[in-house]
Formats: sequence, structure tokens, C-alpha cells
Amino acid sequence: MEKVSVIKIGGNVIDDEERLHSFLQLLAKTPGKKVLIHGGGKLATALAEQMGVPQKMIEGRRITDVSTIKIVTMMYAGYINKNIVARLQALGCNALGLTGADANCITAQKRPLINGIDYGFVGDVQPNQDGSIWSNFIDLNLLPVIAPLTHDGKGQLLNTNADTIAQEIACMLSQYYSVELMYLFEKNGVLMDVSDERSVIPDINLKLFAELKEQNVIAAGMIPKLDNAFEAIKRGVSTVRIGRAEDLQEVRIGKSGTRIK
Amino acid sequence: MEKVSVIKIGGNVIDDEERLHSFLQLLAKTPGKKVLIHGGGKLATALAEQMGVPQKMIEGRRITDVSTIKIVTMMYAGYINKNIVARLQALGCNALGLTGADANCITAQKRPLINGIDYGFVGDVQPNQDGSIWSNFIDLNLLPVIAPLTHDGKGQLLNTNADTIAQEIACMLSQYYSVELMYLFEKNGVLMDVSDERSVIPDINLKLFAELKEQNVIAAGMIPKLDNAFEAIKRGVSTVRIGRAEDLQEVRIGKSGTRIK
Repeated sequence: MEKVSVIKIGGNVIDDEERLHSFLQLLAKTPGKKVLIHGGGKLATALAEQMGVPQKMIEGRRITDVSTIKIVTMMYAGYINKNIVARLQALGCNALGLTGADANCITAQKRPLINGIDYGFVGDVQPNQDGSIWSNFIDLNLLPVIAPLTHDGKGQLLNTNADTIAQEIACMLSQYYSVELMYLFEKNGVLMDVSDERSVIPDINLKLFAELKEQNVIAAGMIPKLDNAFEAIKRGVSTVRIGRAEDLQEVRIGKSGTRIK
Repeated sequence: MEKVSVIKIGGNVIDDEERLHSFLQLLAKTPGKKVLIHGGGKLATALAEQMGVPQKMIEGRRITDVSTIKIVTMMYAGYINKNIVARLQALGCNALGLTGADANCITAQKRPLINGIDYGFVGDVQPNQDGSIWSNFIDLNLLPVIAPLTHDGKGQLLNTNADTIAQEIACMLSQYYSVELMYLFEKNGVLMDVSDERSVIPDINLKLFAELKEQNVIAAGMIPKLDNAFEAIKRGVSTVRIGRAEDLQEVRIGKSGTRIK
């Protein structure tokens, strides 16, 4: 089976022009077929401020009201996505920018109230979607670049977690390719001690994950990422790696970062 | 040869939620393979105002400085394009939103100074591009929806006239299909008297166009549209029609609008 790398980059790489540019250069040098998923970052918050639209966050999650879905659509699918695509083109990668609405590639359901909280136009990805369009794009030698937006199939765009989108795409592609999923962010990997970048856990399996969670070793923000990673493995993804965006090449070959087994 | 309709809708259809929705319903009902190109409309101007970015227009053309290319990218490729895509999906059309940077589908050159005027990040489409990616998308039963943005291949997005993009796509597709190009806007067609919607010229050829231009009958805004139309015919497009967006079905079968021969 041919190999495809599904790579997710976090918001903090997006927020910094120079880091983003260096990362895209690394990505362009990475051999083989690839898919890139990008987060949103703080640019949407800055735009909301400039437009005078107050933003409400609950536990780090953006409440996406009618003005905010407009802002994130402009920022994620417009500014961020198209600038990444144009830059990748300049680096010789035939990038194709997408949201979940494009080619109906990722559908989601509007999140119901959770503990009485209305998250607004936020989508929960529908699992087990047909992934044939992804293999069509990849077979055309395109590099899909996905913004963290999906749709409900009824005309509504939905703000959606990029980690979950990456996991779902990796699972869909596993029907056609041997898929490697990489979560790249600002840390060296999954850390035993969040304040010590040298404390990377090189390998983690479900048993160790359960133990570390019980001992409160794993940082709260890392838990959903790892849940996504284990779910991906369960659903046919061959490898999941978590590491520093700047170390893409090293993470890819297991010289850096954490490997999920 | 299979038939493809390349349809361009003007900004005033975009600006009005209700008109846009009615138009998309008409489009969804139109049989056969289709490509949609949308203009920008006044939403970018409204966003610029909200963000406190002054806009400069010269003879109806937007001077696209560094803040303005950001605004039009957010508005055209983000908000407008993705909302059209999500709505078409709801209507059963498998839409795929694109700028010229996506899949490298339309490259352009940054416009040089014209009479000492720097238009900024404005692109002039490069003619005679390879159109194979368009036929790939159409063969996947996708309905490409193009925002009026291109790129220079060196990482820069460029604000680009939607009429010219429509013409270029129609010409590219003529290598593979029998192409019908439709310019749809707020008037009944090319008018003998711009204030009289009943004065539609049903057919116009190069000779008549030259005569009417000489007599100052053709409205100034219509001349570049007609130049594009005749260029398209010259380069292999089978039919070009100009008419009212609401009359899509009638324009298509020649019951309304102007036909360019």
C-alpha cells in the first residue's frame, strides 16, 4: 500500500509568519503524498477585536455565534488557507485548499447543548464518511490543505476542531493507503513534565496512557489529542506521531517526538 | 463533445442574500456540467469600512494594497465562496470552492503601472494555460466555484477581474468540451438604451459591436465584458450569452438576453 502522511499543524505555527514559512519549506521537502490540516490560531480573535465583535471562550473553546462563524470562515478558509496554498504553490507543491463543505469532503453535526452550554455553530465530525474524494485528489497529485471548518449538508458552515478533522481524514484515507498521522505543535512531544522539553515520552500505548492519566502526568490539553490518536490507530491508521513542527523530518522518522502504538 | 456551462454572476447578486439564494436554486436545477465564477461585490468595501481600512477606487477599480488583498481574500475566498459552496451542497450540487492558487488552476501576473497608476496586488490572467485540472474536477462530477483571486506562482495572491477569469476558464475548457459561457448580471442583456430594459440586442457580432461602439450606444461598463466575450469565441468557446441572473433558464435557451456570435 502506498504511504500518505496526514499532517496537522497547530495555531501557534499559523500565528507566526516566519515559523509558518519555515514549516512550509520543511513540508515541501518531505517526500511522498501528503495532506495538511491547519488550526485557526489567534488571528480570528485579532480580527474579531478589529471588527468590534466580542469573543466568548469557555474552557478554551470559542463560542461561535452568527458573527463569529463569519469571522472564522473569512480567517480560516480565506486568509490563512489561501496564503498557505499560494506559498506551497511557490514551493512546488500543488496545494488545494478545502473546507469540509468543498466536494462535501467532511460533514458534521451542529453540536447539541452540553451541560446547558450552546457552543453555537460548532460541528462534531460525523465518523465513517466515504473517503473516495480524498483518494481522487491525492491521485491527481494534489496536496489537500484543510481549514478547520465543516458543514452540516443543509447549507451551514461549522467551526470544527482541527485535531478531530485530521484524525477523521487519516481514518478515511486508511481504506486506500498506509497512513501516517502527525500532530505537530510547539512542544517536543508528549511530556512527562510539561515544563521540561527533555521529558518526551518516546512511545505510548493505551496501557501507559491510562496509567499516566491516573497519575495526572499528562497535561489536560494533551488528553483529547491522544484520545484522537488512539482512535485513529483503532480505525486503521498505521502510525501516529506527536512532535514539534520545526522537527517535522525527525518526527517523521522517529528521531524526535512521541509515537503512539 | 460534452457540453459545459461556464456561468459568471456579478457582485450585485452576491450582495443580496435573497437574490443569491434564488439564483443558486436556479443553478442547481440547470442540467449538465457547470462551472460558477462569482464576483466580489460590495461586501469587501463594507468589511474594509468595519475594519477601518480606507479603500481607494480609480475608475471603478479597487486599488489593492497590502491590507486590501487581505480583506478581499477573507471576503471572496472565505465568506462568499464558502457560503455559496455550502448552499450548493444543500441543493445537491457537489461544489468545490477555488481560487486560482488552488491546484494552480489560474496564474496571473501582477499588473504593471498603467499611466503611472499602481493598482497594487491586482492580477492580469496569463492566457493559454493548461486546462487539464478543470476537466479532472468536472469528470469527478464536481461543480467548481471560483472566487475572483489568482496567484503569481511566487506566493502572492492577486485580486482579479471575474469576467476575465470566466473567459479564461471557458477557453481552457474548450479543449475538452463544447463550452457555453454566460455572463449574468442585473440587466436584461446588452441594451441599445441603458435606461430601457426592453431594448435588449438579441444578437451581436463583431461588426455590429464596432458600429455600436462608434455610435456610443454601448454602455462603457459593457465594453470590457463584450471584449471578453468576443475573445472567448475567437478562442473556441461555442456560445456566449449575456443576461439577467434571475433569467438563467431563459438566457440559456436563447429566450432572453444577448447572444454573442
